[in-house]
Amino acid sequence: MTPTPSVASRRLMLGVLGALPALPVLFGATTAQAQTAPLSSWNDGAAKQAILDFVKATTDRTSENYVPPMDRIATFDQDGTLWVEQPLYAQAFFALDRVHEMAPHHPEWKSHEPFKTVLANDLPALAHFSERDWAELLAVTHAGMSQSEFLEIATKWLATAKHPRFRRLFTELIYQPMIEVLEYLRANQFETYIVTGGGQDFVRAYSQRVYGISTQQVIGSSLVVKYQLKDGKAALMRQPKLFFNDNNDGKAIGIDLFIGKRPYAAFGNSTGDQQMLEYTGSGNGVRLKMLVHHDDAAREYAYGPAGGLPDTKVGTFTQALMDEAKARGWTVISMKSDWKRVFAFE
Amino acid sequence: MTPTPSVASRRLMLGVLGALPALPVLFGATTAQAQTAPLSSWNDGAAKQAILDFVKATTDRTSENYVPPMDRIATFDQDGTLWVEQPLYAQAFFALDRVHEMAPHHPEWKSHEPFKTVLANDLPALAHFSERDWAELLAVTHAGMSQSEFLEIATKWLATAKHPRFRRLFTELIYQPMIEVLEYLRANQFETYIVTGGGQDFVRAYSQRVYGISTQQVIGSSLVVKYQLKDGKAALMRQPKLFFNDNNDGKAIGIDLFIGKRPYAAFGNSTGDQQMLEYTGSGNGVRLKMLVHHDDAAREYAYGPAGGLPDTKVGTFTQALMDEAKARGWTVISMKSDWKRVFAFE
Repeated sequence: MTPTPSVASRRLMLGVLGALPALPVLFGATTAQAQTAPLSSWNDGAAKQAILDFVKATTDRTSENYVPPMDRIATFDQDGTLWVEQPLYAQAFFALDRVHEMAPHHPEWKSHEPFKTVLANDLPALAHFSERDWAELLAVTHAGMSQSEFLEIATKWLATAKHPRFRRLFTELIYQPMIEVLEYLRANQFETYIVTGGGQDFVRAYSQRVYGISTQQVIGSSLVVKYQLKDGKAALMRQPKLFFNDNNDGKAIGIDLFIGKRPYAAFGNSTGDQQMLEYTGSGNGVRLKMLVHHDDAAREYAYGPAGGLPDTKVGTFTQALMDEAKARGWTVISMKSDWKRVFAFE
Repeated sequence: MTPTPSVASRRLMLGVLGALPALPVLFGATTAQAQTAPLSSWNDGAAKQAILDFVKATTDRTSENYVPPMDRIATFDQDGTLWVEQPLYAQAFFALDRVHEMAPHHPEWKSHEPFKTVLANDLPALAHFSERDWAELLAVTHAGMSQSEFLEIATKWLATAKHPRFRRLFTELIYQPMIEVLEYLRANQFETYIVTGGGQDFVRAYSQRVYGISTQQVIGSSLVVKYQLKDGKAALMRQPKLFFNDNNDGKAIGIDLFIGKRPYAAFGNSTGDQQMLEYTGSGNGVRLKMLVHHDDAAREYAYGPAGGLPDTKVGTFTQALMDEAKARGWTVISMKSDWKRVFAFE
């Protein structure tokens, strides 16, 4: 499944040369913090206060907005909300690396777009790929194997591939303040779900280890899967066809499909999360709706209304979304002023 | 949504005349039992022993087949495995009652099949409905409203509709020995899922109250749902089109889609559960695969290899399934000899 990459391909094979560093002991450290001072990586301000007030209102038995534990559902977008999504989604880097790995078996790709651009490492052209180009890349690189085989491929990649700017594993580029929100909510008996436009099975490969979120609490986009009985053994084979697009209205639909309950808290950072926040906010009682605004070019990136980056088709925090947030009373988190620390390794 | 039913329709409106009886306090009673003697409604024998041995092997830290709690997944078919499915699925009775309720708004149904047969209360003809007939009935009676409205309609029906033979609420016709299995597994840190060919949203209307299973642990067949923003409020509208058929190979696919882990235990009673048991059994280590065989005409029903009932298109426990069970070492539960008690009310 993983032929030796060509020399040329190595430029895009991010981090394959790096050794696997020890992961920071995130959970031990922050659990202890949560008991003493919740959200310690947050500066005091409206955003932090909104989270504290929400938890108090929904967990205090004397509150008119008390929510029984079985209904405490919180949903989180992943890319740009829990970890870095610039300059590309981690899963897009994975797909590009897969194209290089698979290329020896597909000589026709050298003259066929979008593969030609990927194999030529033409980064400027790649930034202009259409959704259809990405869909073709994802279908080819993510299908044609069993679910178990895909898990192995993704796990192997995640253990070595590094981010081009931060030179760290993608799984280290998770936002420490958001990890604290996950833990704070779980300590208050909320179930924390990831609701991602990205691939459900890709995220499930690391969600437990990285976020403390089990596979059954990851909702995402998925491919058609076929049941196969081979030599008496059952396997599930990934087909190159989208089954469910968990983005935009798909996020509200996916939450209802997988959970069957309306969230009390929802966190996002782009137009892909708009319907999830609308759906959350349409419930009765107190609901927490938050958007991460990337306005910190020094520590991470600045894009959306904060400007500073060209339109890369990811993380679209439009002015219209900012206007809706204001009109509906959603809380906008400023990465720059609300977060003391962005990453755990800082 | 629920116009007054005509006099003629009342014949099929099972139990509408009955008052809502107090539900037996199932969970309090059996939880206490589970602590002292697990599976007390089971006779000693191979089936009971298989469950006890499985739990011991997977939860004993010194066992080579120890399974960490996060991987302890158990899946249960519903109709015929957790509750009565004869002479029709409860959800089919619900659909028939809905046709009568909705008929005043659909005068054309009087001359249009399969509605004509339903409205004429022609039970013998109804027994010969094709899958397509049922699909049409389900689409019409289960769609055209929001998810919240459907929940309300189903909840109202469940509170009064009664089974034609037992004259009890359908939710009272759950198998006491299986409730004890659910509780015994949960007491041993297994997550218990319903994996049903029936409607996911129908089962979610009562799963917590009746089985102690939360909505997010109910996987079933579902309709296409559309996101709608009306007067600024988000709603999810049910469309008359099947989205996911959680039966046969769909059960293995649904488990992977919703849970992302292979079960260690699976319980079924028909060919619809075959792939779920194959998929469960294809994992490594010790896996529990069980089939409920309905061979007890006196206390419940006898069908499948036990014969005694005409083919009603439900609960197909074929001879081929019995042969596969033997070949693969699945445990067949005899309702007659393995269960001391069938229902809690006995």
